[in-house]
Amino acid sequence: MLPYQTLIIVEQKNGIPIYRQIANRLISLIQSGKILPASFLPGTREMAGIINVHRNTVIAAYNELVLQGWAEAIPKKGYRIIPDLPIIKPRSFHPEPNFIIAPEDDVSDYYDGTVAHSYQGAGIGESKIIVNDGFPDIDLAPYEEIMKEYRRFVQGGSLKRLMSIRYDGGTPSLRSSICTFLNQSRGLNVGPDSVLITRGAQMAIYLAISTLINPGDHMVVSNPSYFIADEIFRKKGAVLNRVGVDQDGIDVDQLEDILKDKPIKLLYIIPHHHHPTTVTMSAPRRIKLLNLIEKYRLWVIEDDYDYDFHYQNSPILPLASADHGGRIIYIGSFTKILAPSFRIGYMIGGKNIIRQASAYRRLIDLRGDTIMEGALSAMIDNGELNRHIKRCKKIYARRCDRAAELLKTELENIVDFQKPQGGMAIWLKFGLDYPLGKVMSRAAQQGLLLAGSAYFQGEHMTTNSVRFGFASLTDDELAEAVRILKRATRG
Amino acid sequence: MLPYQTLIIVEQKNGIPIYRQIANRLISLIQSGKILPASFLPGTREMAGIINVHRNTVIAAYNELVLQGWAEAIPKKGYRIIPDLPIIKPRSFHPEPNFIIAPEDDVSDYYDGTVAHSYQGAGIGESKIIVNDGFPDIDLAPYEEIMKEYRRFVQGGSLKRLMSIRYDGGTPSLRSSICTFLNQSRGLNVGPDSVLITRGAQMAIYLAISTLINPGDHMVVSNPSYFIADEIFRKKGAVLNRVGVDQDGIDVDQLEDILKDKPIKLLYIIPHHHHPTTVTMSAPRRIKLLNLIEKYRLWVIEDDYDYDFHYQNSPILPLASADHGGRIIYIGSFTKILAPSFRIGYMIGGKNIIRQASAYRRLIDLRGDTIMEGALSAMIDNGELNRHIKRCKKIYARRCDRAAELLKTELENIVDFQKPQGGMAIWLKFGLDYPLGKVMSRAAQQGLLLAGSAYFQGEHMTTNSVRFGFASLTDDELAEAVRILKRATRG
Repeated sequence: MLPYQTLIIVEQKNGIPIYRQIANRLISLIQSGKILPASFLPGTREMAGIINVHRNTVIAAYNELVLQGWAEAIPKKGYRIIPDLPIIKPRSFHPEPNFIIAPEDDVSDYYDGTVAHSYQGAGIGESKIIVNDGFPDIDLAPYEEIMKEYRRFVQGGSLKRLMSIRYDGGTPSLRSSICTFLNQSRGLNVGPDSVLITRGAQMAIYLAISTLINPGDHMVVSNPSYFIADEIFRKKGAVLNRVGVDQDGIDVDQLEDILKDKPIKLLYIIPHHHHPTTVTMSAPRRIKLLNLIEKYRLWVIEDDYDYDFHYQNSPILPLASADHGGRIIYIGSFTKILAPSFRIGYMIGGKNIIRQASAYRRLIDLRGDTIMEGALSAMIDNGELNRHIKRCKKIYARRCDRAAELLKTELENIVDFQKPQGGMAIWLKFGLDYPLGKVMSRAAQQGLLLAGSAYFQGEHMTTNSVRFGFASLTDDELAEAVRILKRATRG
Repeated sequence: MLPYQTLIIVEQKNGIPIYRQIANRLISLIQSGKILPASFLPGTREMAGIINVHRNTVIAAYNELVLQGWAEAIPKKGYRIIPDLPIIKPRSFHPEPNFIIAPEDDVSDYYDGTVAHSYQGAGIGESKIIVNDGFPDIDLAPYEEIMKEYRRFVQGGSLKRLMSIRYDGGTPSLRSSICTFLNQSRGLNVGPDSVLITRGAQMAIYLAISTLINPGDHMVVSNPSYFIADEIFRKKGAVLNRVGVDQDGIDVDQLEDILKDKPIKLLYIIPHHHHPTTVTMSAPRRIKLLNLIEKYRLWVIEDDYDYDFHYQNSPILPLASADHGGRIIYIGSFTKILAPSFRIGYMIGGKNIIRQASAYRRLIDLRGDTIMEGALSAMIDNGELNRHIKRCKKIYARRCDRAAELLKTELENIVDFQKPQGGMAIWLKFGLDYPLGKVMSRAAQQGLLLAGSAYFQGEHMTTNSVRFGFASLTDDELAEAVRILKRATRG
């Protein structure tokens, strides 16, 4: 007989009923070939003695085996393992935990094509202050409103019906509210059929690319550009051509040279508060770009992740609000308005594009959070979202001023930056005497985690810049952050 | 002068300040070449008269143009459009709304490779009763508990720090709670490094396939199989080989023949409550399959979307709880436990697989809903989730019995079915004299929407079956649904 007293260990308080612990262990002994097909299990009384539990518990365990099809009860003889289980070889008695590591042979190299640096968890515990990539201040997030609308939606009568059906483009009420929101704030002219709800701008970029790009297609992106978008493009097999970006946005003359030179399928652009550099594209360049789009039949993804927070004037209308013959796919998100975890975004495009992207969306995410989508729709319709934007805009504008002042005063000959016209981050270019990797690690030692996108490695060695998210820092935190940063540059 | 009185139409109540409406309209006239570079705008007093607004409103609009870089104020002369805007040709005066439809040339055919039928919105308005694919009853969903934990998390002190950083694998506390949950309920033995949080099982399947499959790789799937998974496999370029499925699950002998015949990279399998057929795989086949996995070094995606609701006995432990050398990727979700909109799922695998899949996840969805993840983690830790499962299991088991009884009595010679051991749907096989398409449309006319996955078209003509989700139907709804269904089969 097997040494059951060592093979079946019962834990009193691990939350699984004892009889199931015994049954599970027996199944694993059967599966691993230690208990053989057609063999009899020890009698219930005997087993109860061996493993020191009540006999009824053993009976329950054996019956579980029967119910699950591993054993059968033979009258007057006891419990027998089903004979026609395939014969399997006994294994070693050293159980190897699975899932430690999968066999390497088929797993391609760890995919981490990024040249930019971005924090993931590391160091968060020790730091006093975290300067993020440019996120909204969640202390300002309208959680009470969100929860109120959430509750109202849950208690409303339409939920059960809504949830019984899948709407590939997103909840109908939200698609319609988003049209109102975009048409009013951005001068677009769209209806619900042109709207696909996504999980934030990120999913919208992924879906747009999946819909339009085939491996080997040429694209144009800025240098630098949003590095996670770059990763998508590479993953989808696009060939990247880069154009420079200066204080007026991307260099459209350089773009034209490329367009003359080879067939380009698509341009990915962030004209408003470019990521990472925060630059806003100038009017003349916008017009020239619109002409190029028409002339070269260029597809464009306009990523406008940060439109709603513009301080120095009204935000500049998106390219998508001009005539473009349906070639611009416009992408945005409510994440920057509400909170990093509130991931509802959208993709706007021709109906045919939206239909395709919706069909692709269900492959990666069957449906959105119907209730959150309903709550957001209500907040758009009742004006709460716009009130929230107004409230935050004042605060962020003041923080932007304050951050620019402090950085200018305290880090004068160390960093160079343009105060952005909007958004939630300042693009800090460190002098080459201050290698960013070192500055960041010294700052971290002093309790300041610079968690914004940082470009200082590999091809970006001389960029030596980081996004300094000011929007979620109070005055005190900002002052302390700059103080530590200054010390960290001194070595 | 341009006919400004017809070109600039101001709407008093559309929510955009008047001056911005004017500025936006002027910008679009500049962009479309109707107002030329270097030209002067009409004087503010004159314009105010033409379009019938206060002069200060015109001044505000013009200043907006200046701030946005479209115009400049020339002292004593007025407002002039910036001269070095590129010259663009005037366009027709018929403004074409964009986004109606994108140019077709580059858009590949509408992607809808599915052979199965599934409702999207259509008909929901008119129907009295909706029978879904097998969703939990949202009237039982623990929304109060979810909102309580949501609120607690929002009010807690750790939120701001948590949100400043991206955790690619999901919120650490939830990863750890999921380990407890899985190890206790499914006999797995995993730690947080083996867990990736996703948006439901759907995203987990997508990520697993994206990590493991290259175009041209051969896979094995059942016939029929979960059709949206099939779409993923095709989209990723996999070649599908099909094996039959009977009342004991997939035919492992047929599988072995295929494995002998050609190199197969991966098997996608739903051993517990197979989708769509609801069959649970027998013990002997499970053992044989584990042997084949080892022998042929086969990768396996084990989709266990519906584990927690098993009525006739304890659920059968997943394949992933046996020894498999790290070759099984185990996928599940909390959607079936809580509500269709509550999309938190997971993928369990070797650390290296999880690291790769996490890097891929951020390309399609930057992060999850940190607060909902926190709330779920709390509900696992405080036992509320298990209490909820227990509560629902009793109700669903009763509904399953009741549905099976009614269907047997009322539709005896019309449909054939096996009462499932668990899950939330019954697989109704209609006799070929009752073509499902017709039955469904007649039922819809009488107020019954059969919204479950239905297989009756193309290659599935003779399958003629539909998933009948019973879990969210009250006794009355169930009786009414069966009554209408019976009438609908009579023609």
